[in-house]
Amino acid sequence: MGIVTADFTVTLDGYGAGPNQRLEAPFGEFDREGVHAWHLDHADENKAEVARITEADAYVMGRNMFSPGRGEWDVDWKGWWGAEPPYHASVFVVTHHEREPVPMKGGTTFHFVTDGITSALAQARTAAGSGNIAIAGGATTINQYLAAELIDELRLHVVSFTAGVSSGSRLFDGVPRVGFEVASARHTPYVTHLTYRRA
Amino acid sequence: MGIVTADFTVTLDGYGAGPNQRLEAPFGEFDREGVHAWHLDHADENKAEVARITEADAYVMGRNMFSPGRGEWDVDWKGWWGAEPPYHASVFVVTHHEREPVPMKGGTTFHFVTDGITSALAQARTAAGSGNIAIAGGATTINQYLAAELIDELRLHVVSFTAGVSSGSRLFDGVPRVGFEVASARHTPYVTHLTYRRA
Repeated sequence: MGIVTADFTVTLDGYGAGPNQRLEAPFGEFDREGVHAWHLDHADENKAEVARITEADAYVMGRNMFSPGRGEWDVDWKGWWGAEPPYHASVFVVTHHEREPVPMKGGTTFHFVTDGITSALAQARTAAGSGNIAIAGGATTINQYLAAELIDELRLHVVSFTAGVSSGSRLFDGVPRVGFEVASARHTPYVTHLTYRRA
Repeated sequence: MGIVTADFTVTLDGYGAGPNQRLEAPFGEFDREGVHAWHLDHADENKAEVARITEADAYVMGRNMFSPGRGEWDVDWKGWWGAEPPYHASVFVVTHHEREPVPMKGGTTFHFVTDGITSALAQARTAAGSGNIAIAGGATTINQYLAAELIDELRLHVVSFTAGVSSGSRLFDGVPRVGFEVASARHTPYVTHLTYRRA
């Protein structure tokens, strides 16, 4: 059986997004370009870590990552990733609102799961077969899986500056005590890649 | 001229202490023994990092680290470190309440500074000569120096479990955007030692 992984990029003070997230600014008031420069602009220096983000055989993501905002679906909205998303596998979106599956080019299909994170993970496991499942984000969804102790390998990409915001999405918010072991730590001047395995 | 360093041990979710800190429980509701096991119980595995904590030529610490609580001094209180504290140098305690210097065995003298963090650092610099100055803690004091961009080298010791508290002392709280570069990252299964230099 595969393992459940999660990659997440955080500032030195633990933020994945800033306040006031909305469709026009999915990361809210946040230096998205700076925080994500390690893979957007410097993928060459971080090749192994970039590749691992999309090597799972099925994915789970929160509604807010697929489409910021709440309420009924705009069925014209098919995510941020263009016609051919980088997942090339089934992606299970946890939501309160039903929607028919959305097949995309290149093997990605977005499925919409309305009965919670455990069900989404079970469906992803079926889709992944013996492969791995990645919890793609955002922070709220990863925190729910962390709290339920369902993440086997947490890969943090910690950038070397603080967000300097007073609110936003912070990894581990609301997560009770959970224990990991550090499997690896690799750094460039601008980012530290930390791999944690469930203790 | 020496540099200004700070060593700080945090949980995976960024806490250095829990809620309800008081004289009888200086870390509040917090697994102090677990969080600090890396140097209390496993100093052998972390020899270099342990040694660096007390190799500065002068120190600055907050009132709350010297003696939790507020108000006038109990002059019988001489810190947590017994007759011979591990500093062997001048330690400048930032406080609102004047007090005569307290000389201890082994070369440590506690000085009490009532005119703020900049003055405390200036006095420590004089005491250190060409040596380094360490901001010894706690989180509130380190955060003040971080916000003022006065820390040249921040050495984080990140333990591999979350505190699972909903309040307490968190590193970087109230710190605006500040940038570092990662100088080194070393790990054991239980702790990651990250050295950041001011960018």
